[in-house]
Amino acid sequence: MERTERVILTNLCMIYNGSKVLVEEKVGKGADGIIFPGGHVEEHEPIVDSVIREMKEETGLDIEKPCLCGVKEWINEDGSRYVVFLFKTDRFSGDIISSDEGRVFWMEKEYILKSNWIWHMDGLMRIMADGEYTELFLDAANDWKPILK
Amino acid sequence: MERTERVILTNLCMIYNGSKVLVEEKVGKGADGIIFPGGHVEEHEPIVDSVIREMKEETGLDIEKPCLCGVKEWINEDGSRYVVFLFKTDRFSGDIISSDEGRVFWMEKEYILKSNWIWHMDGLMRIMADGEYTELFLDAANDWKPILK
Repeated sequence: MERTERVILTNLCMIYNGSKVLVEEKVGKGADGIIFPGGHVEEHEPIVDSVIREMKEETGLDIEKPCLCGVKEWINEDGSRYVVFLFKTDRFSGDIISSDEGRVFWMEKEYILKSNWIWHMDGLMRIMADGEYTELFLDAANDWKPILK
Repeated sequence: MERTERVILTNLCMIYNGSKVLVEEKVGKGADGIIFPGGHVEEHEPIVDSVIREMKEETGLDIEKPCLCGVKEWINEDGSRYVVFLFKTDRFSGDIISSDEGRVFWMEKEYILKSNWIWHMDGLMRIMADGEYTELFLDAANDWKPILK
């Protein structure tokens, strides 16, 4: 096998409409607070297909033309790599329907970091909203310090 | 182990300067022709670090702020996934030095698809230069048909 790594592949997507972004409120999922909707890439599923499917499942919306703008990643203690593909799109149709994964609702972009955000939403905003960076690496060897690249 | 896949992680980067892009001419590497420089992500290496390192090794240039703009991927016959992270940047310094991987040189963007390009450079240009798409998926079940998403 040529240089394979064991990797967990996931996605997040910022669906936006002018100054508003669609967020999901997690409760009882390991952390409580605001994050973008997303989920796992299934085995052998194309990555773009996975984010279109997850947005339908978690927000009720049909998205088009998700644009890959960055990646969040870290190395687990067992040596596997966790990769989150970060997408954004302002092309969507349908009505918002929340799922068991959390309530979804529109929020003004400027209020995100004043809310009870979780899972490095501050770094994600600098990648997905500001376009300042393209990677958020969590350094396991340094107390999981978040490093923007 | 939570939902890991065996994945081969690699990168390509379009270094550009106005209307020119830096290309690499492969000879005797399975296919002969023009492609963007790139290489493997090493085990546990952050993805952005990998593309900065590969550009130094293959072009002699120090790049800054590579921006992730897409992904090329396919599923191998053994079930592993091959992922190519597609970056671009116009921030670089240093002098061009070719490596054993191939001669690197500047080419006008408009001449790329008139050259002897290889490895789906036509699809890559629509992602990396035009920003029309964000994924190139090669469908193994359909004679490796390239699908832009």
